[in-house]
Amino acid sequence: MKNAVVLLSGGLDSATTLAIARERGYTSHCLSVDYGQRHRAELDAAARVARALGASAHRTIKIDLAAFGGSALTDPAIAVPQAPTTGIPVTYVPARNTILLALALAWAEVLGAQDIFFGANAVDYSGYPDCRPEFMRAFEQLANLATKAAVEGRKLALRTPVIDLTKAEIVRRGAALGVDYSITVSCYQATDAGLACGRCDSCRLRRAGFEAAGLPDPTRYAA
Amino acid sequence: MKNAVVLLSGGLDSATTLAIARERGYTSHCLSVDYGQRHRAELDAAARVARALGASAHRTIKIDLAAFGGSALTDPAIAVPQAPTTGIPVTYVPARNTILLALALAWAEVLGAQDIFFGANAVDYSGYPDCRPEFMRAFEQLANLATKAAVEGRKLALRTPVIDLTKAEIVRRGAALGVDYSITVSCYQATDAGLACGRCDSCRLRRAGFEAAGLPDPTRYAA
Repeated sequence: MKNAVVLLSGGLDSATTLAIARERGYTSHCLSVDYGQRHRAELDAAARVARALGASAHRTIKIDLAAFGGSALTDPAIAVPQAPTTGIPVTYVPARNTILLALALAWAEVLGAQDIFFGANAVDYSGYPDCRPEFMRAFEQLANLATKAAVEGRKLALRTPVIDLTKAEIVRRGAALGVDYSITVSCYQATDAGLACGRCDSCRLRRAGFEAAGLPDPTRYAA
Repeated sequence: MKNAVVLLSGGLDSATTLAIARERGYTSHCLSVDYGQRHRAELDAAARVARALGASAHRTIKIDLAAFGGSALTDPAIAVPQAPTTGIPVTYVPARNTILLALALAWAEVLGAQDIFFGANAVDYSGYPDCRPEFMRAFEQLANLATKAAVEGRKLALRTPVIDLTKAEIVRRGAALGVDYSITVSCYQATDAGLACGRCDSCRLRRAGFEAAGLPDPTRYAA
């Protein structure tokens, strides 16, 4: 079995990505990052998802990006938009995916894993620059210059199996692989119990995905 | 004045880099990372250096890379070599510079800074892959795809002013800029009071640098 590091946020896309890694025969080492996000519900969800999908390990690394601020997800003084906005929304967290991938790279090298799975999506998404395929290609290039493993010939592959799927396609794929989406949390401002607001960008994209897929939406909403 | 983020380890190279950023007219926001290294002496040194060289801010971010292990610098069970070794030494920390730069990128974006200064050196160095110029170029490319700032036209420059200098050249340059190297700590296994071992790779490179520069070595050695 090949080892992989799977970045797991607790949301829909990363849960589907983990299910795909499992289907492809990887032993999954799931990494979640407690970066100072507004709520812990998604980290709790990540732990449930890792367990439900048979990950061989799940580790949560803490790093206080709230010390830098600059995002509605890390600074309580910046409100999460309740309706669509234009441009890159304030929920963008500066350099977040670069940081997440850098941490995954560190663990991958220590594990001897040559694959990182990342559930980024660039179709039904919020326009974050660090979700785009060109960013992923640039990170893979960097990774293959960065590590002792790569220099010694153990190249790293960054796998983003849902990046060019619609949300509906992701949901259908995950459902076919047995993902229980009721245990995932996508909402930017979920309650501590994991109840979703139904109004933020992430909730809207998710709800529309289930509708377009013709599948019942198992999300637990607060209202 | 232009803002810059300067990665500051507390060692000789990054202190010189900060002095160069100051000479070039930048307002320096210094970032140190407490990543679980063997001793705190270098973080204390970083604070002294930031103060001595007039940084406008100094922030230390904590992240527990010891949770991943795999390096003599983060795992006490792996000994620091006391004599030269072949290949990339065990003091290499998996993906460390990728992580440091990712954090610097996050702060730079929040500050509106378009310059990151990083005191990597690829001449008198230990062969770490993430100190090489090709790694730096790849990071700069990544950074310019990663952020909202870059997408909106505020490009980021990664500046590594000492990367192709010998240690002797770095020391001469810093001395000319008034850097007090007695307050810096390069040793991989310094005592809590900042006394250097004189035997590790980092100590050897540093001592040889002062010798080749024809300057007195102000390092405080333990023995």
